[in-house]
Amino acid sequence: MLKEFLENLRERRPLIHSITNYVTVNDCANILLACGGSPIMSDDINEAEEITSMCSGLNINIGTLNERTVPSMLLAGKKANFLNHPTVLDPVGAGSSSFRTDTALKLLKEIRFTAVKGNISEIKTLADGSGKTKGVDASEEDCINISNADKTVKLAKAFAEKSGAVVIITGAIDIVADANKAYCIYNGHPMMGSITGTGCQLSAVTAAYLAANKGFELPAAAAAVCAMGICGEIAYQRLGKLDGSASYRNYIIDAMYNLDGETLERLAKYDII
Amino acid sequence: MLKEFLENLRERRPLIHSITNYVTVNDCANILLACGGSPIMSDDINEAEEITSMCSGLNINIGTLNERTVPSMLLAGKKANFLNHPTVLDPVGAGSSSFRTDTALKLLKEIRFTAVKGNISEIKTLADGSGKTKGVDASEEDCINISNADKTVKLAKAFAEKSGAVVIITGAIDIVADANKAYCIYNGHPMMGSITGTGCQLSAVTAAYLAANKGFELPAAAAAVCAMGICGEIAYQRLGKLDGSASYRNYIIDAMYNLDGETLERLAKYDII
Amino acid sequence: MLKEFLENLRERRPLIHSITNYVTVNDCANILLACGGSPIMSDDINEAEEITSMCSGLNINIGTLNERTVPSMLLAGKKANFLNHPTVLDPVGAGSSSFRTDTALKLLKEIRFTAVKGNISEIKTLADGSGKTKGVDASEEDCINISNADKTVKLAKAFAEKSGAVVIITGAIDIVADANKAYCIYNGHPMMGSITGTGCQLSAVTAAYLAANKGFELPAAAAAVCAMGICGEIAYQRLGKLDGSASYRNYIIDAMYNLDGETLERLAKYDII
Repeated sequence: MLKEFLENLRERRPLIHSITNYVTVNDCANILLACGGSPIMSDDINEAEEITSMCSGLNINIGTLNERTVPSMLLAGKKANFLNHPTVLDPVGAGSSSFRTDTALKLLKEIRFTAVKGNISEIKTLADGSGKTKGVDASEEDCINISNADKTVKLAKAFAEKSGAVVIITGAIDIVADANKAYCIYNGHPMMGSITGTGCQLSAVTAAYLAANKGFELPAAAAAVCAMGICGEIAYQRLGKLDGSASYRNYIIDAMYNLDGETLERLAKYDII
Repeated sequence: MLKEFLENLRERRPLIHSITNYVTVNDCANILLACGGSPIMSDDINEAEEITSMCSGLNINIGTLNERTVPSMLLAGKKANFLNHPTVLDPVGAGSSSFRTDTALKLLKEIRFTAVKGNISEIKTLADGSGKTKGVDASEEDCINISNADKTVKLAKAFAEKSGAVVIITGAIDIVADANKAYCIYNGHPMMGSITGTGCQLSAVTAAYLAANKGFELPAAAAAVCAMGICGEIAYQRLGKLDGSASYRNYIIDAMYNLDGETLERLAKYDII
Repeated sequence: MLKEFLENLRERRPLIHSITNYVTVNDCANILLACGGSPIMSDDINEAEEITSMCSGLNINIGTLNERTVPSMLLAGKKANFLNHPTVLDPVGAGSSSFRTDTALKLLKEIRFTAVKGNISEIKTLADGSGKTKGVDASEEDCINISNADKTVKLAKAFAEKSGAVVIITGAIDIVADANKAYCIYNGHPMMGSITGTGCQLSAVTAAYLAANKGFELPAAAAAVCAMGICGEIAYQRLGKLDGSASYRNYIIDAMYNLDGETLERLAKYDII
């Protein structure tokens, strides 16, 4: 079932407009291409609406947020809403500064997001102001694991209901939820935390899956999360003795490039609750 | 004949000032080093002229264009003209927003470029306003292939005459033309489109070839285009079963690092018409 | 003795705030993770103080310097001083424009740096205004080698005394000095100059070593410099026939990821004078 979402993506090659940070932007562009989409990065207010209009989806990421691009995010988001384009928010570091928190809340208020993806601290910050962050990573006490997954599913569903977006909470277990239903996804590998940007890459890939699969928001987002996690697993298995985090970074994108629907279907591990 | 252009480049190690986008900037810096040049990236108006003055060439790329850097581009370009430094324009995404199109046209009007490099949609946009783009890629109907190469050569020569620049149009066949003569270059590999930034890298490399080979603008630009295409071929041959686009990206830069004049000469495939 | 500094770093995982350039920022984030630290990149004035407050160290790098971020650097630096966080300055390209030179001097005047790292031209520019640069690289006549190391050690000690910072001068031999004592470090490989950002990566890694080893500024900075150089050596030995500068870049970060205290201790080559 998940495989069709990938196959649609490879066939439709949606162009995704990203307004994103300068740390992981190159990886985001490359993984968008690798998964079957096509990237355009643009953040200036003079072209935000035009660029988003020619695309099929919008990805807003607030890492390295700066004053100049906030109005561009708002304009692009509203235009994407008007055009009914899938829009994704990655509230990187929400909770670590009031500028990021306030901006993320403002974006959530003024734009209707198709999906919001964050770690548990970022999502808690947006859902009820209770998140604790360690920079751009979730605080340890917040991390999702088998013992608190139920609680996290509840939080995700409640925030999905409130925001109208599919909510993706990443961690040892990833949760992808709308108001009624949640995927608990067991793919991925802890080493993904040893490189920068796997979260940003996931948001970008999610935007591509959503743009290629309109009307199937929840399972398409789940497919994106499974795909990213599976690539983290495949890349890990490929590591040689001298390889480390830089090779791992490359192998993840390589795996995304080579991923086909059958493999996605076969390796995806999840429960629906 | 092409080999001397590379040998001059490795010997002279020209310092190239790049005002460029934040998506592919790291790859541009690394391939500049790999091909024999030396990079400095700088985009602030407070230093644009000083930085360009200490360099031997200037590379202006309008990907992720923003208001802040347009005046820096103009200042640097005029200073480079005054100093008779080779200058390259890569009008990334011209045609996809009026901001990009207008800025590219303004740069072309106020700066005398030694070379302008784009895909067919970008060049058509600048030459006669007729380009169609799919984001930062050429639209399919615009793509250069064996059946429309003649028409494209005419366009390139006409735009070269009008602009005074060597015109480089990239595609399945790459055209490098001045007003009188055109190289049709058959190097390269389609997989180069599956990573971000091979076009940006080509502009950077072209600036280095031009800076090291003043007075030989047309063949030096052709040598740069052949070199980039050959690296795409060598990298492709090196791909293993698990490799994908990220490894391919690395292998291209590796190939540029290892490329010597003999290999460039031997593998370059082109006609002059 | 050096090994403990690495072991502390891996145990304490300090979060490092970086205000840095967009050319090498991704490599800086990844090598921070690889060495045992944790990165957050943020440059907006609206969050500079908050972000630095939640971190354990601050890394300021003036590559691609622009007007917008200078006030952020000053605010973050003063806050880091107030909180007694280790702070590192990498004056990339000081001497190549008055904007960079003046900004570096202003930062040095208003912020108390724990360490300042540059090539010989950058350090001379800051120490006595005599540096000559070739863009972001040291000019050849300035380079450190066995015949002028003594003179460079004197310069480093004098500038350390004047600035109150540990002074790191990189070159064929790296000097790490406070007012009284200097490490002359023989690790590293010339091929490190064929990729962009090994210097920026070293500053980031130094900030992490300092943040994890407060009270041991000089030897902790020396450990960081040895670690970076050793990774350059290990990566070089790993190069295959087709590998070039892109693979080398990856192998350096891989080596940093795999480096342990024993290896650091065993491979470090230095004199203390």
